Amino acid sequence: MSSLAKGHWSDVRTQVDKRLAAYCHDQRTLAQTRNPAEARLWDLASEVIMAGGKRLRPYLVVLAYETFGGTEAKKIIDTATAWEMLHQAMLMHDDIIDRDYMRHGQLNVAGLLQKQYTIPNATDRDHFANSGALLAGDLALSSAYQLFLDSGLPTPQLHDALKAFGTSIDTVIGGELLDTEAVMDALGTTDSLLIAELKTASYSFVGPLQSGAILAGASTKDLTLLLELGTALGIAFQLCDDMLGLFGDEKVTGKSNSGDVREGKRTLLLQYTFEAVDEEQQTFIIKTVGNPEASDEDVEAFRKLVESTGAKTKVEMLIGQYIQEADSFAEKLAAKNADFAARYAMLSEKLRQRKA
Amino acid sequence: MSSLAKGHWSDVRTQVDKRLAAYCHDQRTLAQTRNPAEARLWDLASEVIMAGGKRLRPYLVVLAYETFGGTEAKKIIDTATAWEMLHQAMLMHDDIIDRDYMRHGQLNVAGLLQKQYTIPNATDRDHFANSGALLAGDLALSSAYQLFLDSGLPTPQLHDALKAFGTSIDTVIGGELLDTEAVMDALGTTDSLLIAELKTASYSFVGPLQSGAILAGASTKDLTLLLELGTALGIAFQLCDDMLGLFGDEKVTGKSNSGDVREGKRTLLLQYTFEAVDEEQQTFIIKTVGNPEASDEDVEAFRKLVESTGAKTKVEMLIGQYIQEADSFAEKLAAKNADFAARYAMLSEKLRQRKA
Repeated sequence: MSSLAKGHWSDVRTQVDKRLAAYCHDQRTLAQTRNPAEARLWDLASEVIMAGGKRLRPYLVVLAYETFGGTEAKKIIDTATAWEMLHQAMLMHDDIIDRDYMRHGQLNVAGLLQKQYTIPNATDRDHFANSGALLAGDLALSSAYQLFLDSGLPTPQLHDALKAFGTSIDTVIGGELLDTEAVMDALGTTDSLLIAELKTASYSFVGPLQSGAILAGASTKDLTLLLELGTALGIAFQLCDDMLGLFGDEKVTGKSNSGDVREGKRTLLLQYTFEAVDEEQQTFIIKTVGNPEASDEDVEAFRKLVESTGAKTKVEMLIGQYIQEADSFAEKLAAKNADFAARYAMLSEKLRQRKA
Repeated sequence: MSSLAKGHWSDVRTQVDKRLAAYCHDQRTLAQTRNPAEARLWDLASEVIMAGGKRLRPYLVVLAYETFGGTEAKKIIDTATAWEMLHQAMLMHDDIIDRDYMRHGQLNVAGLLQKQYTIPNATDRDHFANSGALLAGDLALSSAYQLFLDSGLPTPQLHDALKAFGTSIDTVIGGELLDTEAVMDALGTTDSLLIAELKTASYSFVGPLQSGAILAGASTKDLTLLLELGTALGIAFQLCDDMLGLFGDEKVTGKSNSGDVREGKRTLLLQYTFEAVDEEQQTFIIKTVGNPEASDEDVEAFRKLVESTGAKTKVEMLIGQYIQEADSFAEKLAAKNADFAARYAMLSEKLRQRKA
């Protein structure tokens, strides 16, 4: 792995973090002239936004932009930051849907508000805290568009990239709905790979890659190549996420490795396991998965089933296959740009070694 | 009142309704290729969006655009429609915050989903229904930006109008938070006029008027005039809304005239009444306002207090004053455009006679 590739990602992250901080600061200053409550919401939102994250989507925007010959290194950072802001908006709303008050091991917007609000009725307090988080997510969603507009990149490409941005947003929202509704469906009836494609691959990989490429003036053929590359890589990423959500080291991932089970998340691991077991074990799975009160012992017993049925190995192999598929698309792109091969290799390697 | 003015509004409404229907239809068709759940969400969203409304904001966009000499009658409809889409997004999220399942006397997105979902646990069913509504609001918010971008109006003005669009969105979100948090505060401590300005005037009047004017190339001086006009008219509109929320004919307004009391909405009517009564009556108000279980008799007793303390008369007079203030700004604008005087007169008259 070249040091160039490593340095590149952290360089993008530094610039995006700086732009995020400046944007939130400016909005907070404006808000203060209108309404102290709005300023307070910006404080909470920026605390959460700045709390960290890989800044994967911004990196992919810049990677694709440079691969296809884009040279406005400073302007593309606004677009890259817009993608991170969109991601933050989706996380804020996702947490409401998942009834979570933590993110990356820290309190999220609802969690912070829950601590601030002092009304005695707990149900009302939660509701008001989540209402604030809903509004913070709306601020972030609108801000994503605003950051995109700020870039000052040429109009026709900017327009096309913004239209594609809208398609990514619609797609991820649809994926989120599918994922949410799946929890209400009988086990074994969900198409987990479709959810991974819509909820993760489309907006975390395909969208950012295509954005960067569109803004650099890439051809339709190249956009199709990025669609294929991003879909394969994104599905692999989601499957890794599912693995970490059940087998991950909580100290490293910063998130519970029993939450997915108790929430009833329809992962491919669950799907393969459910299909492989006998009726008695299916009954145990139905009783355990999606049960917020499931004991640690039951979660561990489920974890053992995922291993003993071979579901874990099957998913691990599938991750390898998707990464290989992505690699083959990446080879075609490597010809376009000398740095791309090294940068992509790091990305693909990170995914193979992913621990958090 | 000229027939021109009357015909103008209904003409804008017809065109905006047509554009809304076409946009939702196109998005639904695209969604269907990706994910049936997304297509279903578009069905619900468009059912709610097309269920009606005055299309006030679109009318104000077109009114200002034409007043300042804008001639792209067809293109401005996209911008006008964007404002209606934003309004629909805000209503969808507002209903979640207010825990409402109805809007305009019909089921809203959460209400429709609540009927579709069959899981037995009522709390979970409500939560999933509201999660769907949250996602529908996100679709609508992103769609508002997309419609704005679709207009094909000249880039510099479009960019400025989109930046102002973002400011309106931030402002209304801040106003919504202030309004929501006020319900947790002690009675008599809320600045209801500030909420009316931020939550209603800024995005229902000032924003659309300035959007139309910016796109027509109006001067900074004219934008300031519209800020003053829109603020006065918007506050009057919100105060009328508060009156209808307590004294309105439910058959005409299509909404409950006791809901605001039971929700504890911090209206100016409440503020004036609370300030005017003795301690015993204050205790009664504290017990009644914000109590979802308050009896019809108690709500009626509160209504009588609003009348007997003179709070109702005071607010009615204030509405008159704000409309008069708006009229004086409108006179300055009437010189710009022959039709403006007649169109504004109708708007102001509608507000004076408002029953729903």
